[in-house]
Amino acid sequence: MNNFGKNFRVSIFGESHGQKIGIIIDGTPAGLPLSNDDFTTDLLRRKSGKRGSTPRLEGDLPEIVSGVYQGYTTGTPICLTFNNHNFNSADYSNLQDWPRPGHADFVSKIKYNGFSDPRGGGHHSGRITIGIVAAGVIAKKLIEPISVEAKILHIGGENPWDDILERAMAEGDSLGGVIECVAKKIPVGLGEPFFDSMESLLSHIVFSIPGVRGIEFGDGFSAAKMFGSEHNDPIIDESGKTLKNGSGGINGGISNGNDLIFRVAIKPTSSISKGQETYNLNSHKMENLKIVGRHDSCFALRVPVVIEASAAIVLADLSNAGRAL
Amino acid sequence: MNNFGKNFRVSIFGESHGQKIGIIIDGTPAGLPLSNDDFTTDLLRRKSGKRGSTPRLEGDLPEIVSGVYQGYTTGTPICLTFNNHNFNSADYSNLQDWPRPGHADFVSKIKYNGFSDPRGGGHHSGRITIGIVAAGVIAKKLIEPISVEAKILHIGGENPWDDILERAMAEGDSLGGVIECVAKKIPVGLGEPFFDSMESLLSHIVFSIPGVRGIEFGDGFSAAKMFGSEHNDPIIDESGKTLKNGSGGINGGISNGNDLIFRVAIKPTSSISKGQETYNLNSHKMENLKIVGRHDSCFALRVPVVIEASAAIVLADLSNAGRAL
Amino acid sequence: MNNFGKNFRVSIFGESHGQKIGIIIDGTPAGLPLSNDDFTTDLLRRKSGKRGSTPRLEGDLPEIVSGVYQGYTTGTPICLTFNNHNFNSADYSNLQDWPRPGHADFVSKIKYNGFSDPRGGGHHSGRITIGIVAAGVIAKKLIEPISVEAKILHIGGENPWDDILERAMAEGDSLGGVIECVAKKIPVGLGEPFFDSMESLLSHIVFSIPGVRGIEFGDGFSAAKMFGSEHNDPIIDESGKTLKNGSGGINGGISNGNDLIFRVAIKPTSSISKGQETYNLNSHKMENLKIVGRHDSCFALRVPVVIEASAAIVLADLSNAGRAL
Amino acid sequence: MNNFGKNFRVSIFGESHGQKIGIIIDGTPAGLPLSNDDFTTDLLRRKSGKRGSTPRLEGDLPEIVSGVYQGYTTGTPICLTFNNHNFNSADYSNLQDWPRPGHADFVSKIKYNGFSDPRGGGHHSGRITIGIVAAGVIAKKLIEPISVEAKILHIGGENPWDDILERAMAEGDSLGGVIECVAKKIPVGLGEPFFDSMESLLSHIVFSIPGVRGIEFGDGFSAAKMFGSEHNDPIIDESGKTLKNGSGGINGGISNGNDLIFRVAIKPTSSISKGQETYNLNSHKMENLKIVGRHDSCFALRVPVVIEASAAIVLADLSNAGRAL
Repeated sequence: MNNFGKNFRVSIFGESHGQKIGIIIDGTPAGLPLSNDDFTTDLLRRKSGKRGSTPRLEGDLPEIVSGVYQGYTTGTPICLTFNNHNFNSADYSNLQDWPRPGHADFVSKIKYNGFSDPRGGGHHSGRITIGIVAAGVIAKKLIEPISVEAKILHIGGENPWDDILERAMAEGDSLGGVIECVAKKIPVGLGEPFFDSMESLLSHIVFSIPGVRGIEFGDGFSAAKMFGSEHNDPIIDESGKTLKNGSGGINGGISNGNDLIFRVAIKPTSSISKGQETYNLNSHKMENLKIVGRHDSCFALRVPVVIEASAAIVLADLSNAGRAL
Repeated sequence: MNNFGKNFRVSIFGESHGQKIGIIIDGTPAGLPLSNDDFTTDLLRRKSGKRGSTPRLEGDLPEIVSGVYQGYTTGTPICLTFNNHNFNSADYSNLQDWPRPGHADFVSKIKYNGFSDPRGGGHHSGRITIGIVAAGVIAKKLIEPISVEAKILHIGGENPWDDILERAMAEGDSLGGVIECVAKKIPVGLGEPFFDSMESLLSHIVFSIPGVRGIEFGDGFSAAKMFGSEHNDPIIDESGKTLKNGSGGINGGISNGNDLIFRVAIKPTSSISKGQETYNLNSHKMENLKIVGRHDSCFALRVPVVIEASAAIVLADLSNAGRAL
Repeated sequence: MNNFGKNFRVSIFGESHGQKIGIIIDGTPAGLPLSNDDFTTDLLRRKSGKRGSTPRLEGDLPEIVSGVYQGYTTGTPICLTFNNHNFNSADYSNLQDWPRPGHADFVSKIKYNGFSDPRGGGHHSGRITIGIVAAGVIAKKLIEPISVEAKILHIGGENPWDDILERAMAEGDSLGGVIECVAKKIPVGLGEPFFDSMESLLSHIVFSIPGVRGIEFGDGFSAAKMFGSEHNDPIIDESGKTLKNGSGGINGGISNGNDLIFRVAIKPTSSISKGQETYNLNSHKMENLKIVGRHDSCFALRVPVVIEASAAIVLADLSNAGRAL
Repeated sequence: MNNFGKNFRVSIFGESHGQKIGIIIDGTPAGLPLSNDDFTTDLLRRKSGKRGSTPRLEGDLPEIVSGVYQGYTTGTPICLTFNNHNFNSADYSNLQDWPRPGHADFVSKIKYNGFSDPRGGGHHSGRITIGIVAAGVIAKKLIEPISVEAKILHIGGENPWDDILERAMAEGDSLGGVIECVAKKIPVGLGEPFFDSMESLLSHIVFSIPGVRGIEFGDGFSAAKMFGSEHNDPIIDESGKTLKNGSGGINGGISNGNDLIFRVAIKPTSSISKGQETYNLNSHKMENLKIVGRHDSCFALRVPVVIEASAAIVLADLSNAGRAL
């Protein structure tokens, strides 16, 4: 379903080229100051227009539909909507018959019996994450003094990454990347053993973001190549601080007071203008597809703020932030 | 909380050295043949006693407490319990004061105010996964003809892995590994966009398993280093079959009919007999800890069947298997 | 939280005098024809303007924000919003200091630390049920051929009720009433033993409607005065038809194929223009409160369609309507 | 499903004549003193053996399977089981072919395709409520100083009720009754507007108890016959105390600090030894059924403690008792 969270819960809706998209955020306590301006910074970070990102420009500031009164949250559900505009739906005809590699066109056609909205990916669009970013803005306020920060580690395997990005753009190709997220000042004790482990909840929401291929905590996949004596992380003081933080701030699913650290792999943008041989369900044969229209050559560049928001939402939910301000 | 799943739901309980541990499985339709023998194969695969695994031996066959009548499921909750025995709780004294690196001793002490059961890791023990394996046995029956198979890819980075295992054991050290899970014959259309994506649900339950450090689907972290033209996966026939299955059988969170493929990184066993300098909360200084007792030198070897079970539980939940036999 | 339902799930938001209120409906399968016109009949039934109901008039047709494309549902979340207008917020000043008897003014003040939106009851307003009615329109389509019909049994204890209504209006007083809901053509087997019993789910959503004071199924409270031989309901044919349907179509929490029957008690409208002695938190003494503004003298008259919608939502959820059209 | 509650969650399992029945209770904080003795009083109140109740006698003290260590809760799931014994399953043959009026025999046969456990009602048995009573014992401790007390208001419409009970027993007939539950010292602010209203949650769990036909809060069904000026309840002091508490301690779904009051209608025991003409699915005609075996002539007498437990579970969940001791 379209919900995530138990005590701080978000519910999303909308299609890329519908009239509006939005999110409901439930569990925010009453009395949190909240205005339109609070969203500017994070929404700008996610916004299109930077090099390597699609030039599709929009207003992209939320309309606060409910849950805020005279500049403060009321304690009841907050609904935020965003207008869609400035797009050309003609770009997206015929997707159901000639599904684009890497996109959800084929699965949507089957799952929804041909009734899904194909324009701009419909409900599958990365644009829907704008609501997650907006919810993250509220979550970040709730979890203070915890801070969350995500940044690009590499693009296409390179750091810095200017050259490879130029090359990909020149060739009508695309790139992915890896993002690292770090949260500081987390108290000991958030998360539950087993099904509500910190990693379970974080990975659950992170894999909701279109294009995520992997997630790892602390030493991650490298841990599998270490000896126990290397990966084990001695505690070095009363507060539980560890020497290397190889477990990424989590033991047994529960925060241990060290920095929370995880990395997320983002695939290359699926829409490329370079030709691709792929099956046409109409002509019943492989044909060369060139995707036209405006696309990010590396949408991973816009994802760090979405990852931050996702982490903040989980931390708000686990902190039971909804209960007291 | 201790639950996972919406229409096929499991609830776990128990402590490693308590009298019993167990699981409730809700959402199994009536009329599925089920007997004690059905569990033997998978529980044996998880069982202790192989080289590199702890020699702790137990009966480990479930008691079917409810939900089965005259050899068939009744459609109401199935409770399975397992007796604990053959352990020496004396091994586990003083953990709260001198927490073991890599274990949940420290976080448990804080989170539960010193009231958690320290014996054998208590509720944090990997032993609790025996219930997940048993639930997986039922889930696998429900999702037929879908098959799920997980196997070790490497141990400590090596494949085959006899030498490194010998060496680790000789040195009182431990190893981790990587497991690959493949599910075949999945219909197109399982999973939802965003929060109930196939990857979200699978990663959620997989990170419930103690010791998991990472998960990746299809090309996984490598995808982040590819060009879009490399990672993109052309469809090659009417059924949606793709050329390389780099997306691991999922597009937009929804199964695409190709094999579901994911890999899981398991950390090295935390309990090692090799000495470790770590903080003693009693003496207020770093001291050399040597963990005695019987431990797996590589518990990753026992995890594939737990991963299989986890995947089968998600597939049963998404297939809405609980509704019709 | 603001959600109800497992496989057919509704999420509400909005305040009475905010800009918009609305609902998200998740779990509707793709391909259901749906247009603005489908909502007209039920929304008119709920609408203000009839005798005994408040004359507050509004457009009250939903804006279909998401989940519908070219006249058919897409299978993804449907968001419907309704504009609020034509109100005079000045009517609602000072409520927090001089809370109205029967209203949520006092509890809101405490629960939300004075930050709730007081205008027109804010999120507590009966106006929010417009979203439930709209969701009911969709649910009714999904559960066909099941039909649901609710009607007033009595107003203020009288049937017909013209005289008592005139009298109450003349005196600036108000009335409540009892509504009976009947659903026909329900298959045997909906509902679960215990926590997801048909009665549990129906009563859960019915008590979400502001002003409900009681609910009873079949013989209801009268059953408590009968002998078993009177209340027991013999089965009279192969299909499970019973003689008297005293259990209201449910045994053991599960539909038995007979008509589902329940009755709901609605309290008299709390806002009355007649004076009431009640405590003023500002002056610290009892004072005579006369509530001005437009109010239903018997809002129960508008509730049958809300009850129908609630029943349809539960039946859609239990029928797992979201899975297949 | 078999779960109830969000932050204090219970999961039940078992069949009346299976080996064991039980409950898992999740969300209890660590450090609550808990021993077997704590359950004695409430389980005795529910126990069989009093006049008007079935003489089926059993040990009925719980086995604490998990979640308690050295006399204190550990903060992880508490599993309690109860042995079943002292029954004669032969009493329950042929129920699927000749379903008993008022019982779930017919619906079970259809819903579970003939695979349900027919012995003693199987999972539908009132015996399953023993787990709810045990969970209530824990919940009552958690919500202190809130107290909850339920008692019989009338049996078969009479109070006192000795004569009518004698008469019913003599005639092989049965009786129902009405139970009133009052909770004191509830803080202002528990419950949410709409779907998690206090009444929604209470009615949800109360209708899980087999045999409940109705529930009403405060003035209940009588409110529907009052004028607003009669039912409205003036606030008379700073604390929110009202004059008559006609709303049963709840406004807008939220506790208002006055006593919580609700009443529950229980149907007469369905199993009667008096003959009943009812359809035999085998012989395809109406036949005279005389139910033999031991049965309560008025099981309502045993239900007050189950109602109390249900209310305590909801209050523990809403108080978020699971988070801090």
